[in-house]
Parts: sequence; structure tokens; C-alpha cells
Amino acid sequence: MNLYNKHKDVLNKAIDALHNRTFYAAYPEHPAPAVYGETADADGQAKFKTTVGKKFEELKQSNPESWVGQEESPYLQDTLKITYPAYSSLTLIEKSKSAFHAWRKVSVEERAGILIESLERMKTRFFEIAYATMHTTGQGYMMAFQASGPHAADRALEAIASGYEELQRFPKTALWDKPMGKFNIQLNKEWRAVPKGVSVVIGCSTFPTWNTVPGMYASLITGNPVIVKPHPGAILPIAIVIAELQKVLVENNLDPNICQLGVDTFDKMITKELAEHKDVKVIDFTGNSVFGSYLEGLQGKAVFTEKTGVNSVILDSVEDADKVAANLAFSLSLYSGQMCTAPQNFYIPEDGIKTPNGVLSFDEFAKKIADNINSLVDNPKAGPFVLGAVQNKKTSERVADADKLGGKVILASRTFENPMFKTARVATPALLEVDASKKEVFSKELFGPIALLIKTKNTDQSIALAQEMAMEHGAISCGAYTTDAAVREKIADEMALAATPVSFNLTGGIYMNQNAAFSDYHVTGGNPSGNASFTNPEFINKRFTWVGHREPVKA
Amino acid sequence: MNLYNKHKDVLNKAIDALHNRTFYAAYPEHPAPAVYGETADADGQAKFKTTVGKKFEELKQSNPESWVGQEESPYLQDTLKITYPAYSSLTLIEKSKSAFHAWRKVSVEERAGILIESLERMKTRFFEIAYATMHTTGQGYMMAFQASGPHAADRALEAIASGYEELQRFPKTALWDKPMGKFNIQLNKEWRAVPKGVSVVIGCSTFPTWNTVPGMYASLITGNPVIVKPHPGAILPIAIVIAELQKVLVENNLDPNICQLGVDTFDKMITKELAEHKDVKVIDFTGNSVFGSYLEGLQGKAVFTEKTGVNSVILDSVEDADKVAANLAFSLSLYSGQMCTAPQNFYIPEDGIKTPNGVLSFDEFAKKIADNINSLVDNPKAGPFVLGAVQNKKTSERVADADKLGGKVILASRTFENPMFKTARVATPALLEVDASKKEVFSKELFGPIALLIKTKNTDQSIALAQEMAMEHGAISCGAYTTDAAVREKIADEMALAATPVSFNLTGGIYMNQNAAFSDYHVTGGNPSGNASFTNPEFINKRFTWVGHREPVKA
Repeated sequence: MNLYNKHKDVLNKAIDALHNRTFYAAYPEHPAPAVYGETADADGQAKFKTTVGKKFEELKQSNPESWVGQEESPYLQDTLKITYPAYSSLTLIEKSKSAFHAWRKVSVEERAGILIESLERMKTRFFEIAYATMHTTGQGYMMAFQASGPHAADRALEAIASGYEELQRFPKTALWDKPMGKFNIQLNKEWRAVPKGVSVVIGCSTFPTWNTVPGMYASLITGNPVIVKPHPGAILPIAIVIAELQKVLVENNLDPNICQLGVDTFDKMITKELAEHKDVKVIDFTGNSVFGSYLEGLQGKAVFTEKTGVNSVILDSVEDADKVAANLAFSLSLYSGQMCTAPQNFYIPEDGIKTPNGVLSFDEFAKKIADNINSLVDNPKAGPFVLGAVQNKKTSERVADADKLGGKVILASRTFENPMFKTARVATPALLEVDASKKEVFSKELFGPIALLIKTKNTDQSIALAQEMAMEHGAISCGAYTTDAAVREKIADEMALAATPVSFNLTGGIYMNQNAAFSDYHVTGGNPSGNASFTNPEFINKRFTWVGHREPVKA
Repeated sequence: MNLYNKHKDVLNKAIDALHNRTFYAAYPEHPAPAVYGETADADGQAKFKTTVGKKFEELKQSNPESWVGQEESPYLQDTLKITYPAYSSLTLIEKSKSAFHAWRKVSVEERAGILIESLERMKTRFFEIAYATMHTTGQGYMMAFQASGPHAADRALEAIASGYEELQRFPKTALWDKPMGKFNIQLNKEWRAVPKGVSVVIGCSTFPTWNTVPGMYASLITGNPVIVKPHPGAILPIAIVIAELQKVLVENNLDPNICQLGVDTFDKMITKELAEHKDVKVIDFTGNSVFGSYLEGLQGKAVFTEKTGVNSVILDSVEDADKVAANLAFSLSLYSGQMCTAPQNFYIPEDGIKTPNGVLSFDEFAKKIADNINSLVDNPKAGPFVLGAVQNKKTSERVADADKLGGKVILASRTFENPMFKTARVATPALLEVDASKKEVFSKELFGPIALLIKTKNTDQSIALAQEMAMEHGAISCGAYTTDAAVREKIADEMALAATPVSFNLTGGIYMNQNAAFSDYHVTGGNPSGNASFTNPEFINKRFTWVGHREPVKA
């Protein structure tokens, strides 16, 4: 109970935040020396450098069957040569099953204490995790720090808080006293929140902690043992998190296999073996739609997916076209369009966009976007850091071939030299013009920095297309610009029906790509971009079962 | 708002009851003249009789494409000759889609008011529904009244209350105010609970209202339009409920097609057409496992199932063997074993059952059960009413052939004359002895009054088999008799892992078959007997999506 008492204030604040949905963060997002210590950044970088080229020996998992690792830095375009303890899928599942029974009997208070303590330990390694994230995903430094560190820890805390609350929602016991006229029937009843069992969390290559910790901590707080199967290209950031959690488990005399790292290699992936095994009852997945839909089709399991989508921006009328173009150029450049929330399809009426100074034509607005991309990319103090590097070679190839997609090239993708890493894999955004009739061009996700300016008849057609894309192909985010209240409500309603959150009229330092723990649901679960949401009650309550027993009160 | 104000007290009491899980009922279960009126029973019976042989013209659904109906009374073994307005699956879906947009914009308060009002109207027809239920399902009078009337209305209210609460769980709007150091980013945020869309509720032949109203009202309170597709053999009870709801909708200037009755015939079922249609987003089903599993496999839909299971009774030690045998004989005779909660597999150690007076042998206990069945069945004031009639000819045939199942017949099924209906289809329970090694005999549901006494090595084997059956084949209920606290906890824990609620040591007037709205979850959703539970939060929150929009606060 010690760790529960230590952390119950933050737990209760987090539960309140979930329901207020106002701003809340337990982990400061700014990598400030004042917060994290004067030498925290240098220490983290140094620690990362000593990790490269070695066995990762921090995990408490015993008797590895082999040591493997194939991570490569998109900045260095060279392998990191870090290896991790590896196990067959059957070994991982057996260890998980044997860890299950101890973990499910730990009280939810104690579980919450242990899990929040692991986030406090993770906090001491945010900078190291940041460098690990940069050199596996290609994210810029600031994003790597924030997304993999404090934002991920907040999303994990959100899952813990939501799980803790959900498990307390019904009483543990009750006296059921039914009047029958001349006598009463009295039953003592009790309810148990029974965890589903072995849980597998499948990570992605671009956000190795942020997209992994919600499912991982949601399964753990509800009493399930977890096997984290990271993407073979992005292991180190989550390996550090799991190592810290395993230390806390061992300190509390618990089996470290309650949360295992289960790595594999590109040539011999174990994901399907894990997912299809009958003893695996819960699956979390972030990744491509084909694999996600296959997982959703596995029966008898609780499956949570974040897949891909086609994110839209609807441009109707604006107060300041320059501010809008600057905001959107940043949104589509950030981490080279490799965020699942990045915009891709920009719907612009053929008659242009209404502004206080008259109508801005399609071409004028297209030029503004292109100009803003260029000035961002060509600013040596901003471009390289905002774009970061491209995680996967295939993404670079797709961007380079953007002129073959079927649109008119407004701005071709370029490359440039990153001042810190001359070897970095870089691709600036490609901007294409496409007619609204060419659905085959814009009705799929073009992962990476590719933006399509789609010429529509009018805003009604823009809305209809954005809704159709979200309903048919999924969408995680939507941007909309309108100064007309009726148009605003139409967009809000039509996109809500497509289960897509809309960011209206964003300008300045807030972008449609961003979303905040405790306030913004990430993915709604209501369209083909995924069936799950960080963190709504469904994300929690499919991980356990309410079971009630009863017995007559003894006379 | 009128109807909301009228019913908000009962709504709030129901929400409290859900969380207290103590005894609560809004609708009195006793068909007492003092409660329901001196002539209520006679009036209901008369009304039922005038309905037989005619078109059912009460529904507000317009322009029927045909009139069909093939219901048959298990008591009369004759068709009821009632016909209902029928529509093609496409017509039903089109009408539902067009009703959707009005209904989703009705406030949740107003929806709750309308739906509870419909239950108040249903209450005025409980007796008529009781006779309709008897003559479609074969239930005895008392069960037909209670299960199809007050208990069903309470389960409906439970779904309304749970939905109402779930939709209020997060704020409609919030100001998100993030300190950025020198300035704050302020966003106005709003959240909408967006209904999934057209909902189809597929009824069963044995409990036509009780198993239908939870999904129907859960979908309606969350803003979804509903098509109720009853079993072609049991339409009238739910048709009356829907007629009353449609009247309330029309009185409130709403489209009656918000909840449609969508009947079909045995030779031309429309269930698959409805279920597979892309615009059908939510499906509730009660019925056989093969069809239920097929429905669960349909992707992109929220599917809620109650299928079949193998319910066990574990006999270890008892305080009073006679009371136990009487209780169990009643449980397996009630409605001729046609309840989804009826016990089938009775696990008894080969060394017998411990009692305060020494060990009772397997054979002695088997004889007690058989004797108790006989004395119940042969009591003309009890037997015919407890057993009711057999809904389906196939069930009668299965019971008649029980001697071919592979067990030793302890008690053969008989028939007898029902004093009220000489034509009633009757089958008394068959009791077989089976060795624990013969899993092929007892590892499937034998729907109807067939009980297997399974001879095990000891209680540990009994528990292991009951758990295995529940995990592999599903279980909705479990009975257990033990006076040993350690054995009790082992059963509670092992059956909880199989997501099966256990009724311990029931004797007297309470039976493992029964469960109560607001307190007992019906089906847990955690084993193959079904993926849904009346009514846990998951039963509600998969029917809608939280979608959040945001916009910067204007300076």
C-alpha cells in the first residue's frame, strides 16, 4: 500500500482531469533544466551513446533464448547494433500465464501504486528515451522528448486512472434483500472484476512509447499480464520503460514477467503467432490497416486498433489567410507527415476561399501554402528540426514518386542537409493539386509528407468528401476553417457522424496534429481508422469481466 | 421535457440501484389484483383472445408490403393466425436511416422520458403480454407474466438508466487553458456522444421480450434507431411493446419508425440480410451459438450476443441434502429446462457428497433428485405450471431420445396431460448418469429438460470440468454446494476465471436460473456463452462514439 499512498494524489487528480477534460499534465512537457536538472539532457545523451552497440541487459527477464536487434537510425542511416533478450512466442506466453495469477491477485490500489511509480522512474530517463526515439523513429529532438517522454507518461497515467476508476464503479459486495410478502429473500452478493488474461501490445515504428503505453498500462491496471511486441525498428524507447517497470515489480516481490518485452526481427516476426494463440485474450495494435483489420477479425479476443486514415482539412472562409497557411504548412511538415494525425487532403472550393478582403482564389491559396512550406523548410533554425528524418525508406520512395500519383505538382519534394546529421534521410513536403472527381488519388493514406489540394465545387462538396473519406477509409483528425456559424455546425455534425474530431480555425502555435491526454480522445474508435480510443471507458472495460457470485444469508 | 420530468425520479432511482446493486424493482412482479386492478387478468386474457386470428393493426408503421405471421401455441399446438405488417430488409433499413436523424437530435433527457413512458404503457398490458408469451413460448402463466412483463420492463429500465448515465459521464463542453510560459493557449472544446446508427435486435423464441428489450432500449437511449427482428415463432409479446412505444413516439411528434417491428417467416428469414447490410451498425442477438458466432465475426459493427452454454452444478458438501435436491429438481424442471440459465451438468464425486450426517453416495443423491422431480411433476397443482410446454418440436424429440445420448438413464422423460390445455406439448425431465471421462456426452448444450449427473473423481475434478466447459463451450450460470470455505473460494475463483457467476448453497424459494435486474449481470460476456452482459457499461458504450471538437477562444 506504500506506493499507492505515495501516488494517490496524482491518481485522484488524473481521475478528476479525465472528467473535467480541462488542461492537465502530470509530466512537464518542456525539457527545461529547471525542471529536469541542469545535466539531464547531457546525461541522457551520454547514456544513450553507451547503450549503442551493446546488449541491453537491464531487463529482469531471465534465460534469453537469443539476443537480437535490427534498429537503424534514420539520422545516421546506420544500425544501432543494440541487441535484446529474445524468446519464442510460446515461451513468452507461458511466462505471461504464470505471471498472471500473482498479478491478478494484487489489489487495484497496489497495482496503481506500482504502475505510477514506474512512470516516475521513466521520468528520470526522459532525455535518454528522447535520444533513443530520435534514432529509431527520425523524430526531431523536441517531439522525441515530448511525445516519447512526458506526453506518453501522461497517456499512461490516463489509462491507469481510467482503469482504476472503472474497477471501482460497482461495489465489491452488497446485501440483496427482496421482500416477498411474508418473508424476505436475502442474498450476500459479491462482484469480481476478472482480468481477461494474457495481453499483447503491438508497437509501431514512429511512436514507440506514446502509442504503446496506453494499451500496456490499461491492461496492467485491470490485472492482465502484458507482452509488449515492439516494431523491430523501434525497440529501445519502450525497452527502457519496461526495464523501469520490471525493476519496480521486482522491488515489490513480483514476477518481472508481468510485463515482458517480446522482440523479434524483420525476417522472423512473431506477431501473428502471439495474436492467434488461444491463450492471448487482449491485443492492442498500432499500424497498418490490413494487419489491423486481420487482428480485429480474430474472434474470442478483445482487440484494440489504431490503423490508418485519410485526414482532411476543409477550407471555407478564413479571417487571416496567411496565418491559416502558416499553420497548415507547419502541420503537414511536422515530423515529415509521419504523424497519424497529419493532414493530407485539403478541400478548397474552385471559387476560392472567402476572406474579409474578398475571395482568395484556389491558386492564390495554393501558392501561400507552398510559400509557407518553403520558408519553413529553408529556415535552417526550424526546417531540419520540424521535419526530422524519414523513418522508413519506403516512405522516402513514395514521396519521391509523388508526381506519379495523378495530381498536378505544385511543389515537389526536395532533400536538404540536416546540420546535425549529414546522413539524415530527409524529404520535404510534396504538394499536389487534384480535382475532386479523382477520388482514386485521394481516397487512400499517402503516409509521409504528401499533401493534396483538392478542388471542389463548393464547401458542401468538401464536407461530403471529407465525411465520405472518414467513413470509408477512416480519419483520425480533421481541420476546418470557416467564419460562418451555420457552415461550422454542418461540419461539426457531419464529421461527428463520421466519428472524426474537428479542430476549427487553428492558427498560431496549436496544430490539428496535436492532442492532449486527459482532454482529447485520440482516435474515436468509430470509423475505419481504428476501433479503440485513448482513453474512453470502452478502452478499459473490454479488458476485464464483471462476475457476480451470491449466497443466501445464513439464518 | 415533460416526460423527462414525469419520470426523472424513477430514472434516478434506477441509476442508484445500478450502483448499489441491492434489491430494486420499478415494476411489481406479483400479478396481484391489488397492484394491477381487479379485472386486469381477465381483461388481458380477453384482449389476447380477440387478437388471435386477426391482423395486428396497432403499429404505426405505414404501407406494409405484406402481412405475415406463423406463430403457433405450444399449449394448443395450433397456429395463432395473427399477421403483422411486413417489409423487405431494405425498406426497413431505409425507414430506419430516415428516422435516425430526428432521433439522434432528441436530447438524452427527452429520450429517457419517452422510453420510460413506453414502459409505463407496457405495464398496462402486462397480462395480455403474459398470455401472448404463454401461447408463443410455452412458459407457464407465472413465468410468462413475470419474465415478459415486470422483469422485462425492469431490464429495459436498467438499460435506459445505464445509457443515461453513460451519456452524462463526460462534459458537453470545457475550456482548455494550457499555460505556455509567457502566454496561455485556450481552446473551447465540446464533446458529442454520436450514435453508431441503425441497430437490429434479433429476438429468440423462448423469451421474446425479456431478451429483446435490453438491446432495444440500450440502442434507443443512445440515439440509435432500432429494427426489432423477432423470432417468427414469438412475435406478439414484443409487438405489443413496440406498438406502445410507437404510440408515445407519435404523440411526441416523432417518427414511429425510430423503433420498427421487422417480422419474417420461417421459410424466408431476413436476419442475415439485415445483419450484413453495411448501414446496420449495431446488432443484438439471442439464440444459437453458430449464428451468434457468425454475427460476432461481422466486422465494422458493434455486435452483442447471448448464445448457448453448458451450465454446471458442483456438489461437494451440503447442510441438508433434501433441500438441495428439491431446489435443483425445481431448477431443472422450471419451464422444462428451456431457460438459458437452467442447470444441465451436475458434478458429483464418486465417493459421494459430505453431509452433517455422513457421506451421501452418488446413487443416493441421484435417487433424491429423481424423487424430487417425480413429486414435482406428479403434483397436479405444481407440475403442469412449473414445466409449462415445450416451445419447439425438436426439443421434445431431443428429450425423447435422451437414452441415446450415451449415459445411463436414471429417470426417463415422460409426458402427462396439462389440466388446462389437453393439447399441450409436454416433456418431463430426463436424468442420466454419465462418467466424467465421457466428455463428448456432456460438453454441449442439450437444450430442454435433460440433466446429466456426472460422476467425478473428486471435487477438484468437478471444478476443473465445470471451468473447462464454461471456458470452452460457455456458461451463463453455475450452482455450487459446499460447506467448506476453502473449497468455496476455489470454486469462486476458478469459475470467475471462466467468467461464470456462481450461486452458492441455494435452497428454498430462490433458484440458480433466476437473476434480477439492477443487481445480477445476465451473461458476463467473458466466455463463449455470449459477448455481452445485461447491463454493464460495455453494453452501452459500444453503441455510440465520443467525438470532440475544439476551437481557439476568440481573443
